[in-house]
Amino acid sequence: MEALGRVGATAGGGLTRVALTEEDRQGRDLLVRWMREAGLSVTVDRMGNLFGQRPGARDLPPVLMGSHADSVPTGGQYDGQLGVLCALEALRALADHGVKTRHPVGMVVFTNEEGARFQPAMIGSGVLAGKIALEDAYNVRDRDGIRLVDALERIGYLGPEPCVPRPIHAYLELHIEQGPFLEEEGLQVGVVEGIVAIAWSRLTLTGVQDHAGPTPMRGRHDALVAAAQVVSGVRALALTLGGDLVATVGRLDVAPNIPNAIPGRVSLSIDVRDPDEAVVERALPMVEALVQAAAAAEGVGYTLEHYWRVPRIRFDADVVAAVERAAGAVGARHRRILSGAGHDAQYMAAICPTGMIFVPSRGGRSHCEEEFTPMDDVEQGANTLFLAALDRAGRADGA
Amino acid sequence: MEALGRVGATAGGGLTRVALTEEDRQGRDLLVRWMREAGLSVTVDRMGNLFGQRPGARDLPPVLMGSHADSVPTGGQYDGQLGVLCALEALRALADHGVKTRHPVGMVVFTNEEGARFQPAMIGSGVLAGKIALEDAYNVRDRDGIRLVDALERIGYLGPEPCVPRPIHAYLELHIEQGPFLEEEGLQVGVVEGIVAIAWSRLTLTGVQDHAGPTPMRGRHDALVAAAQVVSGVRALALTLGGDLVATVGRLDVAPNIPNAIPGRVSLSIDVRDPDEAVVERALPMVEALVQAAAAAEGVGYTLEHYWRVPRIRFDADVVAAVERAAGAVGARHRRILSGAGHDAQYMAAICPTGMIFVPSRGGRSHCEEEFTPMDDVEQGANTLFLAALDRAGRADGA
Repeated sequence: MEALGRVGATAGGGLTRVALTEEDRQGRDLLVRWMREAGLSVTVDRMGNLFGQRPGARDLPPVLMGSHADSVPTGGQYDGQLGVLCALEALRALADHGVKTRHPVGMVVFTNEEGARFQPAMIGSGVLAGKIALEDAYNVRDRDGIRLVDALERIGYLGPEPCVPRPIHAYLELHIEQGPFLEEEGLQVGVVEGIVAIAWSRLTLTGVQDHAGPTPMRGRHDALVAAAQVVSGVRALALTLGGDLVATVGRLDVAPNIPNAIPGRVSLSIDVRDPDEAVVERALPMVEALVQAAAAAEGVGYTLEHYWRVPRIRFDADVVAAVERAAGAVGARHRRILSGAGHDAQYMAAICPTGMIFVPSRGGRSHCEEEFTPMDDVEQGANTLFLAALDRAGRADGA
Repeated sequence: MEALGRVGATAGGGLTRVALTEEDRQGRDLLVRWMREAGLSVTVDRMGNLFGQRPGARDLPPVLMGSHADSVPTGGQYDGQLGVLCALEALRALADHGVKTRHPVGMVVFTNEEGARFQPAMIGSGVLAGKIALEDAYNVRDRDGIRLVDALERIGYLGPEPCVPRPIHAYLELHIEQGPFLEEEGLQVGVVEGIVAIAWSRLTLTGVQDHAGPTPMRGRHDALVAAAQVVSGVRALALTLGGDLVATVGRLDVAPNIPNAIPGRVSLSIDVRDPDEAVVERALPMVEALVQAAAAAEGVGYTLEHYWRVPRIRFDADVVAAVERAAGAVGARHRRILSGAGHDAQYMAAICPTGMIFVPSRGGRSHCEEEFTPMDDVEQGANTLFLAALDRAGRADGA
C-alpha cells in the first residue's frame, strides 16, 4: 500500500493517479512487476485491463479478483488500489501455502474506473462485459481532446488480448465502503448484495456572454445564474424525495470564466442514485422540470442529456453467500450491505457470478485525501476475500 | 481591423488573443511594423507597453492616444484593437496632411488590459501610472503558475524603457461602449465623462470532498451548493439595490470537478459596479452577509477578499470639452456618457488630463464574438479622436 501509494502521492496524504497519465503508467509498471514476482502469467487486453493468473488443476473458467488502480484527482490511498493489492496478496497466500485449486485463480486491474478523465466511468470493465463498444471507448476524449486509445498507447498499455466477454467462474472485488455505515455500526466487513441504481445527466446552459460592467441588470441572460438555480434545485429535490436518494452536481464548468464577463455557457453534471430503480425513474422528470424552470427564469437555452444509466444490480446469491460464510469463518464483524457507488463489479455481474466485500471508510470519507481504513479491518477483509475466492475456485489438493 | 483581427480569430468571428500569448506576440509584431511604416519612433517599456511617437514642433510632453490589443477568451474584434487602430489612423492622417503640432503626438498599446490571464486588469497602465509596483506586476501568476515577467520575456516584449509616471499633456482613448445606450438612442459617439466605481472580490468556499454515491444527504458539506446560493444572492442583491448597480459572478472553479465527487472547494469572483462610490460601499457588507449565510447554511468554511477597488473616475473637464467640441465639429450624433467598464484611461487619469470617446456596441454586446460597431460610427469616432488630439496638441503650422 505504501509503495504503490507513493506513485501519484499528494502532499496531503492522498493520491492523484488519474487514468492513463504518467502516474497511472508508473503504478501499472509496479503492479506488473509484483504480479510477475508472484509467479502469475500477466496479460494486457485491448482496453489496457491487466490480468495476472495462476493455473488451476483443470482447464476451467477462472475465479477473478480485482479492482482498479486509477484515482480521482486529489483522491485517497484506498479507493481501488486496496482491492487490487488484496487480490495480489490472496494470490501470494495461495502460492505460499502451496494450495492447488480446481479453477484457475487470477486478478484483474481495470482501466479508467473513476471516469475522472474519460467518461463514462468503469469503461474497461464495461467493454469486457460487452456493454460498451470497443470503438466507442477508444474514441472518448478527455478535456484536452485526447482520445482514450491514444492515451492508452502513449503509456504503453494498449495490449494485444481481445477485450470481450468470456467464461469466468466468479468475480470478487474488495473495496472500501465509501459510506459511513460500517464504521458507525462498529463492523469490519460488508457483504455487498448489490449496487444502487445510478443515473448521470449532463446539462449545458447557453446564455448571452457580455461585459459585466456596462451591461445593465435588466437585459442579462446569465448562464451561471441559471446554473446556480439548478444546483440549488438538485439539492432540494434530494431532500424532497428523501429516503436513500442522493443527488449531486459534482462538475460545473463556466465559459469564458473570467471576472468581468457575464457567463455565456455553463456545463454541469447531475448524479442521481437510489437503491430503488423506481425512485430514480421518478427523480429524472423532476430534474427536467427544475432545469426548465431555471432556464426559463433567466431566459437561457439548454440541452439536458441523461447519458448514462446503471440499473440496480443484484449480485449472485451463491457468491454473496460464499462471502458471508467467509466473513463468518475469519471472525469478522459483518453484515449485508448495498453499495451506493458504482464499481467494475457491476459490469462483471452481467457476465459472471459476482460479489463484493466492503471494508469501512473512516468518517465515511472517500474520493478525498482523508480516505482511511484501519489495518485490522483491511486484514479481515483480505482474509474474507481469500476464503471466498478459494470457496469458489475449489480445492484440488484434498485439503 | 481585418488584418489584425485575423491574429487569434475564432471560428465564430470573434477573437481569442489573450495577453502575453503567442497570438498577442503576433498582434504586437504587426502593430510595431505598422507604427514604423507610419514613421513613428517605437519604444517598449519594462511592462511591455508599446509606444509610437511623432515629434512636435517643440520639446513638450506628448499627447497620447491609445488602448489595448489583448482580448478576453472568445471575445470580439472591437474591444481594444479598435482604439489602437483609430489612434494609428489619426497619426497617419496627421502625416498625410503634413500637419505640424506643437506637442508631440503618439500612441500607446497597453499590456494585459483585460485581466483574463493575469490579474488585476489594466496592469500595464497601472504600473505606468505608479498605482501598481513593477515588482508586484512582474510576480503575478496565471492559472498555470507562469509569472507575468516570464510570459513577457517569452514573447519578446520585455522592453528596456522605464515604466514610470512622466509628463503627458493629454491621454485620449477611443473604445466601444460595451453597453446598449448609444445604439438605443441612435447616437454615434459618447463623450465619456468618467468611469463608475468598481470592486472585485474573490471567495473560496471549503466544504468536505466526498463520494457522491455512498455519502448520505444528511452529512454533506457541499462547497458548490453554498456557491450556488452566493451566485443567486449576488443577483438578488443587484435587484434589491437597483438603480445603476451591476453585480456579477463571472468566474467559478470547482474542485475536484468530477461528476461523482461532492465538491470540496469552490472559488469564485464577485464584480460590483456603480456610478456612485457610496452604493458600492453599501453593497460590499451585503455581499459579506450573504456569503456568511450561504456558508453557514451548508456548514462550509470560507475566505472572502475584496482585493481590487477602482474609485469613481471623473475625467479632465478641458479634455471632455475638447472631445465634445470635436464630436460636434465632425457632425457626429453624440451625448455625454459614463463608462461602466474599466479602461486604461482610468489609470492615465491619475497622471494626466484624460478623456475617452465611445462608439456604439450593437445590442450592447461585448466580451463576446458578436461584438460589432457599424463602420460609419467608427469613422465618426475616429474623426472625433483625431480632432480632439489635434485640439490638445495644438497646431504649429499656423493652419
